[in-house]
Amino acid sequence: MKIDMYLNKIEPIRPEAMKATREFWDTRTHPVGSLGVLETSTIRLGAIQRRKIPRLLRKSIVVMCADNGVVREDVSSSPPIFTQMLANAMARGETGVSALSRHVGAELIVVDIGMNREMEREAGIVPAVIRRGTGNIVSEDAMTREEALRGIETGIKIAELEIERGASILGTGELGIGNTTTSSAMLHALTKESVNRCVGYGAGITEVQLNNKIAAVEKACARLPRDADVVDIIKTVGGLDIAGLIGVFLAGAAHRVPVVIDGLISGVAALAAVRLCEPVKDYLFASHRSAEKASEVLYRALDLNPPLDLSMRLGEGSGCPLFFQLLETAIACMEGMGSVRDNAIDPTRLVNLRED
Amino acid sequence: MKIDMYLNKIEPIRPEAMKATREFWDTRTHPVGSLGVLETSTIRLGAIQRRKIPRLLRKSIVVMCADNGVVREDVSSSPPIFTQMLANAMARGETGVSALSRHVGAELIVVDIGMNREMEREAGIVPAVIRRGTGNIVSEDAMTREEALRGIETGIKIAELEIERGASILGTGELGIGNTTTSSAMLHALTKESVNRCVGYGAGITEVQLNNKIAAVEKACARLPRDADVVDIIKTVGGLDIAGLIGVFLAGAAHRVPVVIDGLISGVAALAAVRLCEPVKDYLFASHRSAEKASEVLYRALDLNPPLDLSMRLGEGSGCPLFFQLLETAIACMEGMGSVRDNAIDPTRLVNLRED
Repeated sequence: MKIDMYLNKIEPIRPEAMKATREFWDTRTHPVGSLGVLETSTIRLGAIQRRKIPRLLRKSIVVMCADNGVVREDVSSSPPIFTQMLANAMARGETGVSALSRHVGAELIVVDIGMNREMEREAGIVPAVIRRGTGNIVSEDAMTREEALRGIETGIKIAELEIERGASILGTGELGIGNTTTSSAMLHALTKESVNRCVGYGAGITEVQLNNKIAAVEKACARLPRDADVVDIIKTVGGLDIAGLIGVFLAGAAHRVPVVIDGLISGVAALAAVRLCEPVKDYLFASHRSAEKASEVLYRALDLNPPLDLSMRLGEGSGCPLFFQLLETAIACMEGMGSVRDNAIDPTRLVNLRED
Repeated sequence: MKIDMYLNKIEPIRPEAMKATREFWDTRTHPVGSLGVLETSTIRLGAIQRRKIPRLLRKSIVVMCADNGVVREDVSSSPPIFTQMLANAMARGETGVSALSRHVGAELIVVDIGMNREMEREAGIVPAVIRRGTGNIVSEDAMTREEALRGIETGIKIAELEIERGASILGTGELGIGNTTTSSAMLHALTKESVNRCVGYGAGITEVQLNNKIAAVEKACARLPRDADVVDIIKTVGGLDIAGLIGVFLAGAAHRVPVVIDGLISGVAALAAVRLCEPVKDYLFASHRSAEKASEVLYRALDLNPPLDLSMRLGEGSGCPLFFQLLETAIACMEGMGSVRDNAIDPTRLVNLRED
């Protein structure tokens, strides 16, 4: 697969495509625009789907699981084996995103794109290993340029399979001890915002670990070539989970299927996808404003305002089922409301006698 | 009914009551606390219900409908007859909150606590008229002190009926052209924040109308006695919808049933209820951060952080069904996740051979 040729398939949403759904909303019994994000999100979904009343059929969350060599810098609260343990638990339906997805009727696709192998892998996990864990980005590249490209292609293939199966929306999630460090490094490299603003507490680390994390990001990014392109950034300071998720964002946009961001890691993948191909932006939806402070930098760079503010810092893709549910509720709202015409004042029902 | 005696029934939630649900969450497979508001909201709900795993059975939204004499100051984008028109449409199931409530399985109780009567009233609307519209607060009191108390009592009675019918959560909504003006006046009187910060664009008004609204709030509040208590504030600058909603908040707290705030108007009623009786605070849930800028003052005064940020400015109670859904999803999440023990690393499944 040639990524460049694939990018050429992605087209921006034309503003006229928003018209049909917007006009439908404007005929519903309410002040125009007063349902806020319930309107704007369904209007964009309608434009993507080219349907006046958009709909969500199959909903799939792709969770990319990979290990990160940077854990050797003591940047995480959990040992690396937790990546595999949690991937197994997720595939058995036991983690946060599993329970939420089941509740909202979303499919969960758990992908091993590069975990270490110290535990047996649950049968439900899709095997798609590029390499078992990345290099320690402080002193060596995360992966080769060829591995980075294969990571993106793997994400494209897995997303395309879900789209073939009928997915009308995709969510993005990840598992990978150490992956907020690689994400922070990529965020810094992509936005040039200060390292301090790009690094946060992840799922919960100590002050010492936070300082380790800041130092790791600084050292890793110092190794970047001056004219680094997006693939160089993945190769030098990124992770396989992020590479795979970039592919999911690209495939969604190429097939006119919206893709939902969870937290920092999938958001960095979204930003990288936008830097590869600007029109990807039109197919992105943010779900929640995570507790990770670096996500402020991210959402400013993406110019998105997440509709949920739940102080969550789990990752896994856990914001996606919550956003799917909100979007389905928004569609039910537009479908369920009466029209202005139906509710116009009927002169035959006016009361002449004022009783007070 | 003696309101003072009723307030004595309301007890704060003891911190120990949070323990059972919190401990249950802490045994689920995730970093402790990482599901943010999904955890904190169910922990508080569990404490209110005295159940380790809380549950929502009947969910009811009480919508108080009333007209406001202050509309004569040109403070609104819609004519007063819209209160009745929209109440009728709501009772027929055609407005935003109707469609959302239907989708999430919530009951909608539409109450006429003081609408003008120019149209026939739909049979589904509960008649509970205190008086037909209030006085123009710029130059006269909204109502008498006795009417304000009867308004509160009406809200208590209607909420108690829903609780008798099995409601395990209540939502609050309103309809009343001009009621963001009365709410802003009450917010200013209750918080002493500047009038400019307490007044916003409501459902959407012009700059001229915004200035009329600011002037109306200033003139109305200038008529308040220096030592005004909460009932004086309702009487002098409030509205019957707000009085009724205060009763709903009090009844929920008295019967250990949580009550959900929608936007500015119901939030001002919540704040007034807390000023009448501090422990009411423990039973309040915020739903969404509305587009109305005055709601910033409100949520700071209530020390609440709404989990939804949808730029909605519809009112009606429309945030409540969205919050009900989120809370039910949070319960499903805690019920659906596996325990840390179930997902512990099984030493017999460790792979000795590293393959990379």
